[in-house]
Amino acid sequence: MSLTVLFSAPEAYWERYRETLPRAFAEAGLDVTLTRAAAPETVDFIVFAPKGPVSDFGPYSNCRAVLSLWAGVETIVGNATLTQPLCRMVDSGLEEGMVEWVTGHVLRHHLGIDRQILSQDGVWAPVVPPLARDRRVAILGLGALGRACAEALAALRFDVMGWSRTPRDVPGVACQHGAAGLRAVLEAAEIVVLLLPLTPETDTLINAERLDWLPDGAVLINPGRGALIDDDAVLAALDAGRLGHATLDVFRTEPLPPEHPFWAHPKVTVTPHIASETRPESAARVIAENIRRSVAGAPLLFLVDRDQGY
Amino acid sequence: MSLTVLFSAPEAYWERYRETLPRAFAEAGLDVTLTRAAAPETVDFIVFAPKGPVSDFGPYSNCRAVLSLWAGVETIVGNATLTQPLCRMVDSGLEEGMVEWVTGHVLRHHLGIDRQILSQDGVWAPVVPPLARDRRVAILGLGALGRACAEALAALRFDVMGWSRTPRDVPGVACQHGAAGLRAVLEAAEIVVLLLPLTPETDTLINAERLDWLPDGAVLINPGRGALIDDDAVLAALDAGRLGHATLDVFRTEPLPPEHPFWAHPKVTVTPHIASETRPESAARVIAENIRRSVAGAPLLFLVDRDQGY
Ligand SMILES: NC(=O)c1ccc[n+]([C@@H]2O[C@H](COP(=O)([O-])OP(=O)(O)OC[C@H]3O[C@@H](n4cnc5c(N)ncnc54)[C@H](OP(=O)(O)O)[C@@H]3O)[C@@H](O)[C@H]2O)c1
Ligand SMILES: NC(=O)c1ccc[n+]([C@@H]2O[C@H](COP(=O)([O-])OP(=O)(O)OC[C@H]3O[C@@H](n4cnc5c(N)ncnc54)[C@H](OP(=O)(O)O)[C@@H]3O)[C@@H](O)[C@H]2O)c1
Repeated sequence: MSLTVLFSAPEAYWERYRETLPRAFAEAGLDVTLTRAAAPETVDFIVFAPKGPVSDFGPYSNCRAVLSLWAGVETIVGNATLTQPLCRMVDSGLEEGMVEWVTGHVLRHHLGIDRQILSQDGVWAPVVPPLARDRRVAILGLGALGRACAEALAALRFDVMGWSRTPRDVPGVACQHGAAGLRAVLEAAEIVVLLLPLTPETDTLINAERLDWLPDGAVLINPGRGALIDDDAVLAALDAGRLGHATLDVFRTEPLPPEHPFWAHPKVTVTPHIASETRPESAARVIAENIRRSVAGAPLLFLVDRDQGY
Repeated sequence: MSLTVLFSAPEAYWERYRETLPRAFAEAGLDVTLTRAAAPETVDFIVFAPKGPVSDFGPYSNCRAVLSLWAGVETIVGNATLTQPLCRMVDSGLEEGMVEWVTGHVLRHHLGIDRQILSQDGVWAPVVPPLARDRRVAILGLGALGRACAEALAALRFDVMGWSRTPRDVPGVACQHGAAGLRAVLEAAEIVVLLLPLTPETDTLINAERLDWLPDGAVLINPGRGALIDDDAVLAALDAGRLGHATLDVFRTEPLPPEHPFWAHPKVTVTPHIASETRPESAARVIAENIRRSVAGAPLLFLVDRDQGY
């Protein structure tokens, strides 16, 4: 029996998946027709990325699952027409890239590399940074990505704290959870990394009050989602000297408009949503495995909890 | 029996060791008088850093060992008056700091962080870097420091090659050795890290010919010793666009003179010999352990091979 898989993603994605997906389907022993247009009732699965053609899932009455190419599903999880199961992307390539980006920027701030790049002024002023063991780093969000980053930083001997909604246990990481845990984590953190999904609960989590809990000069790193932070509160904390630096990869509006004050602020580093991306080879295998499971009647991987929003 | 230990190091070291050394001696059960001046023939051990008072070791006729506070011993190993055993410093704090510095700068170049720091120009131009698994990094020198750095980079999944004088085996690292191995390693390396000691054999190892073996755009990172590289050849390779960047922590003359072209060169990052430093707490325990061994007639740790020069 041949399956029809509809690919609903922006044009640029097609080039990267038109060959990798069929290869992964074949490897998984699946007989699939991958298409970018089909009569809705004939579609068995939808492979999804934001800003593609499908926004009304209603007509896809025989669709057994919507399989996201993105880890973050905030643009689709609240879609009232979506009654099919939704799976997010958990991809080893995505995870590796995020570990590298987060570890790189944590070390950059830990070692004070910016100062060295920006002031090649001929003045020999040796200051040896403290050891990682004496640097407290907090990772907010201990899911697929946050956990991997916490582990990598702990392996480099950083003093790592983690925070999640439900209790989590990560070896070598001091884990807290829920509203009560947040304050304790932020009060201790010299570097804070946001790897939370965007949900009604996490929206604007990092507001003026919570920024105030951080020690003076703390650094904020946000590869999660733009709306996790209150932009104005972050700018105010930077200007007041309370926050030392903000390195931001995600924004409420993307591309970040050229006139947004983040671009020109000397204590903000904007990176253009490149912290990590789904890698076609490994992601295609995840999609194929979930289709294989669905067909075999096995539970889907990485199913989104619609109530929690992630 | 009380031992006399002479502390011969620049003034600034005294503050950091005057309490840590006696504490470590006491922990090791040693009865020691730590002093900065003593009749030479009464001295049992010398704790040594470059640019301290002692340069003629001849009069220290009863001295049983010279214990370096530095990992690199090139300033003392060729001293003809030194007939006593010489031990270099292998210190867990020094190693941790070097792993952090090397990992931080490798990730900085791997991720292209400089571009992001230097061009906050309002242009959203997403380019996702390749994964570490697709980035070839070479570590020249697989001793205490090089090995630890190679392991940390391999743990982050970099494609790591290593090079040493004698055959070495580091899990997850493609190891080569000797003259024959060098070319193979350099021809493949996108990022090269120098963690060699300075010896007659390694002096100016990285010259014009060997720079030419590197792939176009390779990055050179030198936390080893300044004289490992030919400054002019490095500048020429940068100017020719052959070398992408040089991040240098050590120099033939330190402090690096303000007029040295490295300071002003846009493709050179100078850091003021801060990659790592001996940490008093852990280093004092290494010194105490070696004195305990000497007194007990056990072999000294980290003995320098005077013929090899390291
Ligand atoms: N910048 C980029 O390039 C990029 C790339 C990929 C992903 N991302 C972002 O990274 C996010 C995380 O991805 P992931 O795969 O790690 O997600 P995940 O596996 O779903 O993990 C989410 C984590 O956040 C925690 N969390 C959720 N709501 C919370 C709340 N109200 N309070 C405290 N903790 C809460 C969860 O807690 P529990 O463990 O208790 O469930 C979990 O630990 C994505 O949602 C996406 O926004 C960004
Ligand atoms: N920038 C800083 O802050 C800083 C701080 C500390 C140290 N350092 C520098 O780092 C250097 C390395 O320290 P370490 O403790 O790792 O030294 P180490 O344990 O003595 O290791 C030296 C390594 O270099 C290799 N080597 C020596 N001569 C060679 C040659 N001719 N060809 C190929 N390989 C050769 C050795 O090969 P084998 O394994 O075959 O013996 C060994 O693997 C020090 O000497 C010092 O110059 C810099």
